[in-house]
Amino acid sequence: MPRRMRLVAYLKTGPTANHAGGWRHPAASLDDIFDPARYEQTARLLEQACFDAAFFADTVGVPDIYKGSYATYLKLGGQISYLDPMAVLPMMMRVTRHLGLGATLSTSFHHPHHLARILGSMDILSGGRMAWNVVTSATDFEARNFGGDGIPPKEQRYDRGDEVLEACCALWDGWDADAFVMDRAAGIFIDPSKVRYANYDGRHVSSRGPLSVPRSPQGRPVLMQAGSSPRGREFATRWAELIFSTPAGREDAQAYYADIRARLAAAGREAEGCAILPATAVVLGETQSIAEDRAAYLESLINPELVVAANSNTIGLDLSQDRPQPVPGSHQGIQGSRERVAARAQQEGISFAEAAKKPRRLLVGTAESVADQMEDWFSSGACDGFVLWPTHSPGMFEDFCRMVVPVLQKRGLVQKNYAEGTLREKLNN
Amino acid sequence: MPRRMRLVAYLKTGPTANHAGGWRHPAASLDDIFDPARYEQTARLLEQACFDAAFFADTVGVPDIYKGSYATYLKLGGQISYLDPMAVLPMMMRVTRHLGLGATLSTSFHHPHHLARILGSMDILSGGRMAWNVVTSATDFEARNFGGDGIPPKEQRYDRGDEVLEACCALWDGWDADAFVMDRAAGIFIDPSKVRYANYDGRHVSSRGPLSVPRSPQGRPVLMQAGSSPRGREFATRWAELIFSTPAGREDAQAYYADIRARLAAAGREAEGCAILPATAVVLGETQSIAEDRAAYLESLINPELVVAANSNTIGLDLSQDRPQPVPGSHQGIQGSRERVAARAQQEGISFAEAAKKPRRLLVGTAESVADQMEDWFSSGACDGFVLWPTHSPGMFEDFCRMVVPVLQKRGLVQKNYAEGTLREKLNN
Repeated sequence: MPRRMRLVAYLKTGPTANHAGGWRHPAASLDDIFDPARYEQTARLLEQACFDAAFFADTVGVPDIYKGSYATYLKLGGQISYLDPMAVLPMMMRVTRHLGLGATLSTSFHHPHHLARILGSMDILSGGRMAWNVVTSATDFEARNFGGDGIPPKEQRYDRGDEVLEACCALWDGWDADAFVMDRAAGIFIDPSKVRYANYDGRHVSSRGPLSVPRSPQGRPVLMQAGSSPRGREFATRWAELIFSTPAGREDAQAYYADIRARLAAAGREAEGCAILPATAVVLGETQSIAEDRAAYLESLINPELVVAANSNTIGLDLSQDRPQPVPGSHQGIQGSRERVAARAQQEGISFAEAAKKPRRLLVGTAESVADQMEDWFSSGACDGFVLWPTHSPGMFEDFCRMVVPVLQKRGLVQKNYAEGTLREKLNN
Repeated sequence: MPRRMRLVAYLKTGPTANHAGGWRHPAASLDDIFDPARYEQTARLLEQACFDAAFFADTVGVPDIYKGSYATYLKLGGQISYLDPMAVLPMMMRVTRHLGLGATLSTSFHHPHHLARILGSMDILSGGRMAWNVVTSATDFEARNFGGDGIPPKEQRYDRGDEVLEACCALWDGWDADAFVMDRAAGIFIDPSKVRYANYDGRHVSSRGPLSVPRSPQGRPVLMQAGSSPRGREFATRWAELIFSTPAGREDAQAYYADIRARLAAAGREAEGCAILPATAVVLGETQSIAEDRAAYLESLINPELVVAANSNTIGLDLSQDRPQPVPGSHQGIQGSRERVAARAQQEGISFAEAAKKPRRLLVGTAESVADQMEDWFSSGACDGFVLWPTHSPGMFEDFCRMVVPVLQKRGLVQKNYAEGTLREKLNN
């Protein structure tokens, strides 16, 4: 059976995503961002196109790294979660049957008992379709929302992340699938011998259990991760079943792909059990020239200051300054973001500061040429599929589903129907 | 305008509630406890009957106080949350328009930033219908799920509870209602001068903010509380807009009602802003004799050991022993539960141990006679309405909505239609 390209949609609760001007696009809807129907319609659209899953990116706060203030970022429409995605996902479950549904949840700010309980519940209610995008979080502004002075050092965050996942697994494994007896006549509801304490006692987190929520269809949600630093890759190698990456280009993607594959093999894991999906966004046109005009139009919507502010947040440095210096004692910032901008500077022969003003690259073309580029990455060891993030929403997803998906389906690259079973079973199909 | 009786439904994610044998009843459904449709149908039923609200009771764990084990409690069908209610509530929002929706969330185990974010999001998505049943939690088994050795002393829990609510309010008040500009042409999404840090810095919890979630229709959810100890009543007097009580009888309810009214007046609060609703369950029949036979049948389903186990959990003592002693150093147990059993012992001239074996009292009768008893409490200073907990579910709610609600409506005691507006506005209507 030929390899199948996986497609996952990157969603935000709001009209804004990584594209710094996309919310201004006429096919971006704004009035409905607090209306459940918006998210239900997107879920239906993605399921009709047989996307493997949709997940919500999330940051728990309002970034104030750029110029030490949230003013620019909020004013210009920076990417924010205007609603807790956990309140929206159950609604999306009810209008879909097959689409995988992912939540981004931080191991630094939530206790594993809470995570195991809510994710287990959602896996049950969705019939085994939940994914968890595991993040350790990387900003001081998030840590301060939860009472900390700043985000802990990376090693410590990942050590805690390992413990949180171990604790969650211990809690999820506390119920046998056949614990319910429900014998009305005998008056026996549960066989208590099929329920166990977790007794997880780590250095960072502890939980005794048992969970009040029984075993879910998947046993545990599909685990997503986006590790880019060496420690992040180590974490992904141990836990991830889907990796979401943000390479600076094709070569960078190939190098990342090869590295993760090697790490998986060294850890004794099957490569097939971990799909690597770089993030991309597309701009489509009936002709190449129309597509390029549309891309130029989209770029005209961008206020470059927002690009710098957004990069400040992910890199963890205030890039408004000529020579941004890390805050003494601060551990914030995502290594992968810094490397992506540095790679861009090198590729284009510009300074880091100049590269930090550049919006992310887009795949621009006709349905056929975009499909060509996706196929090229897929067949050249750069990826197992893609995470599609929206330039504007729902417009870009509508374009992609109507125009590109049928081309990919015709080429036999993506699925035309869903397999039966849980999300994990579907992904491995 | 005459006073209006408020009706609130007590729900659990599972077939089991306070009645120790109700899950065995033929009109209790068991097969659908993990199916979203069960909860959606209940929400529709309650909205058709113009209930003010439905809320999920919740305990974060599996009780193991009785005999130091969860075996008896699980085996016999003790009340457990088999799903996190927060995963079910968004689904219920989508099939209702007016029904208030309440979540029980602990101030001891959640950080205020998480609480403010998820409750604010749900208030937005429900169009201003959320209620928060604020609990401080009272058991060691819950504390151990969250890494503690045991539950902290009551004073400390309530001190933290006050801080958690103050922090949530500071976060909720961080956004003006008109912060969104959404001017595509000018490229201005938000007016950042309308967003503020919370800068809450307490002894127990801190959060800087701003929340990423804007102001919700209600500003904050309707606050429910069930304080029974003096410190609990003080807390309720400060915060509660709905009080859920569990009196041992009518006189007890009247005394509680008078005390809370006096406390509200002393605090300068309007009595109308805080409805006091004792918990009750009903058994209905076409005739009094049928109702009594049905009550006797329900009682025959009870294994008295489960009543003792359930009382052990709420009182915080292992009542399997002849002379139960508090665990040294343990602070667990709800004072109101202990007092209810003690009052029962005194009323019936039996020992505390005997009283702890008695199932909770039920309102038994025809629709007319049950309505009479409810009206009597309502008009004699015992309550402003009722929290209806199910002997069995959904059977009892169906009986009550079909038979008793029309009688109460005919008497002009309960509403026949919903007022417009948020839950808070409806409750005050």
